[in-house]
Amino acid sequence: MSLNPETYSAEHFRWDYAAGIATITLNRPERKNPLTFESYAELRDLFRDLVYANAVKAVIVTGAGGNFSSGGDVHDIIGPLTKMAMPELIAFTRMTGDLVKAMRGCPQPIIAAVDGVCVGAGAIMAMASDLRLATPEAKTAFLFTRVGLAGCDMGACAILPRIIGQGRASDLLYTGRAMSADEGERWGFYNRLVAADALQDEAQKLARRLADGPTFAHGITKTQLNVEWNVSLETAIEMEAQAQAICMATGDFRRAFEAFAAKRQPVFEGN
Amino acid sequence: MSLNPETYSAEHFRWDYAAGIATITLNRPERKNPLTFESYAELRDLFRDLVYANAVKAVIVTGAGGNFSSGGDVHDIIGPLTKMAMPELIAFTRMTGDLVKAMRGCPQPIIAAVDGVCVGAGAIMAMASDLRLATPEAKTAFLFTRVGLAGCDMGACAILPRIIGQGRASDLLYTGRAMSADEGERWGFYNRLVAADALQDEAQKLARRLADGPTFAHGITKTQLNVEWNVSLETAIEMEAQAQAICMATGDFRRAFEAFAAKRQPVFEGN
Amino acid sequence: MSLNPETYSAEHFRWDYAAGIATITLNRPERKNPLTFESYAELRDLFRDLVYANAVKAVIVTGAGGNFSSGGDVHDIIGPLTKMAMPELIAFTRMTGDLVKAMRGCPQPIIAAVDGVCVGAGAIMAMASDLRLATPEAKTAFLFTRVGLAGCDMGACAILPRIIGQGRASDLLYTGRAMSADEGERWGFYNRLVAADALQDEAQKLARRLADGPTFAHGITKTQLNVEWNVSLETAIEMEAQAQAICMATGDFRRAFEAFAAKRQPVFEGN
Repeated sequence: MSLNPETYSAEHFRWDYAAGIATITLNRPERKNPLTFESYAELRDLFRDLVYANAVKAVIVTGAGGNFSSGGDVHDIIGPLTKMAMPELIAFTRMTGDLVKAMRGCPQPIIAAVDGVCVGAGAIMAMASDLRLATPEAKTAFLFTRVGLAGCDMGACAILPRIIGQGRASDLLYTGRAMSADEGERWGFYNRLVAADALQDEAQKLARRLADGPTFAHGITKTQLNVEWNVSLETAIEMEAQAQAICMATGDFRRAFEAFAAKRQPVFEGN
Repeated sequence: MSLNPETYSAEHFRWDYAAGIATITLNRPERKNPLTFESYAELRDLFRDLVYANAVKAVIVTGAGGNFSSGGDVHDIIGPLTKMAMPELIAFTRMTGDLVKAMRGCPQPIIAAVDGVCVGAGAIMAMASDLRLATPEAKTAFLFTRVGLAGCDMGACAILPRIIGQGRASDLLYTGRAMSADEGERWGFYNRLVAADALQDEAQKLARRLADGPTFAHGITKTQLNVEWNVSLETAIEMEAQAQAICMATGDFRRAFEAFAAKRQPVFEGN
Repeated sequence: MSLNPETYSAEHFRWDYAAGIATITLNRPERKNPLTFESYAELRDLFRDLVYANAVKAVIVTGAGGNFSSGGDVHDIIGPLTKMAMPELIAFTRMTGDLVKAMRGCPQPIIAAVDGVCVGAGAIMAMASDLRLATPEAKTAFLFTRVGLAGCDMGACAILPRIIGQGRASDLLYTGRAMSADEGERWGFYNRLVAADALQDEAQKLARRLADGPTFAHGITKTQLNVEWNVSLETAIEMEAQAQAICMATGDFRRAFEAFAAKRQPVFEGN
């Protein structure tokens, strides 16, 4: 049975839903919204379920209380990990990787709305989103190196270079230093900076715009951004010929033309 | 029989040729230079023929009347597409994809000289070029989403992220919003902005510089930029060892050394 | 027998070593530190040996006398190449490619500290490094086209677009023009610009920071930045799950947690 966004409620984060837009709020503000074994798993399951939740057209991921997320909790996650055997370790790193796979795998565009601290797995969740808004106070760090780990966490060595370039990604991943909001915008990690008191509104507006668009086609855009990652130019072009032909067979394409011909705004239905 | 650039004339755009430089001008200024089924096909055939047109050393693509291109014409293309069956749809999307393949497949570097409106398939033609100059008035939009389609048109989900990064490409492809000229320069889409009244001159100067260079080697540069798209680092380095060894066996390499030794400017012959 | 960094001395460049940090200084300042057949080979062999030189934790590459490197020497390299047969040519281009492979293949992060002239194979060595600092006076050019060659030298058509984007890389590779230091920073080629008299200090500080970090994990970061180059998103994420699980089994991960719990700075041992 597929997820009902109207009635779904999450145990380890807040879920809000209205008119096609789901908002996931990491919600332990007194600890800057860390992730735990349980919240990782629940997020992974949720993003997997969103594949079949047709009513949900766009997703916002954000944090409560002026921070996005402090990442994997030191006491709840890192401590236990230092005591685990390899089969448990790989089960954990696969679970966190599965969260990124699930975020990339759902058809809804995901907007990260980032204020304050956005580090570790929190930075990864922002990175795994499709679009990113931040406040000037956002501090983003892939700080795995600070806890003795490699920068290659949850796809970062593959994804971050595609967003900000190999040289800047290397800087962040080797040093673990914070990227300022200004750098984030200048480097193309953040699509736009907005004042903290406007952040949620701007994220909702952007989600609204996407949710009111041709959402079936948006899902195809997301799929192609994923699957063309490592194919040849020739293959990518053939893949897009097929993918776009599918979209040309949708009602939304016809609706857009009819609206244009009638000099009115199109109303998309996502099919 | 290969294309003779001196005598070639195009039906659906303007073709100018002088001293190794071909200029393609999209030329229906009263409609902002839209593309039609016929102009797509003629452009595709032309770029395919350029593979054998050895006299042509560099190509400029531009638009007449202060705009680059409004893309696929709504009445001439989008209307008919909404009535087509799948085999015709895929034939169309493959033809448009073939234009991009042909632009990437010819050995000549292509310079897009962009003023005003540069949207839809027009933006794609700019994207598929090697170098891009624009005026401060250029407005570039991958607006497929506005007509109910996906962003994955003619290779955009593969190519655009490589030029401006995955985050900015996602913004443009999901929202269909216009990228200003200033953003285009800041993001690396446009190599340089020049005033509208200097645009054609600057494009010609750049084309001249390329056409006067080692044009056989330029063709190899273009080939390698294409074929190394999705190979491993190790493979890329071996491919370049072979490709550069080929160039070291050319006369242009020897000519450059002899000129250097004689303290004069080299005169390249493209062989 | 593995390289002893304390006693190693190089014939064609300067080698300095102290406390885990090796500094390679291209050192023919009267000629702006060109590369020769011999220095290419010695550099290649050195970087290959660094794979087993566990005491070396970070590497700086720089140039003496206010310049980084003028690249392959015109008289010592280009002249002889113009007289070679194909088997010798490909042996040379493979040797230079092997230098890049060796720089990417050693586990130590490499920091290029660039002042003044940084062109041809010099620019390639900067590009093949992990991090890049430059002075405002740095002039970086992939000027192969000036000597009649293609831009595809030693991996440039694959690597440069990942650092600065496909459009800017095309500009530099087709035209051979110099990238200013300011452009280099703005485009993400240089991580930071520092005054000439502070360059070596800043490079040492950055190397110190890396050498004091979890160096085994840094080596894994470098490996993953290389091997995830052309794999699918799904594959990259699984690769990172495995690679990070390896790091979680290291003492450095445990040390970091214990230090955190005890509210002190961690002391990493690189194992």
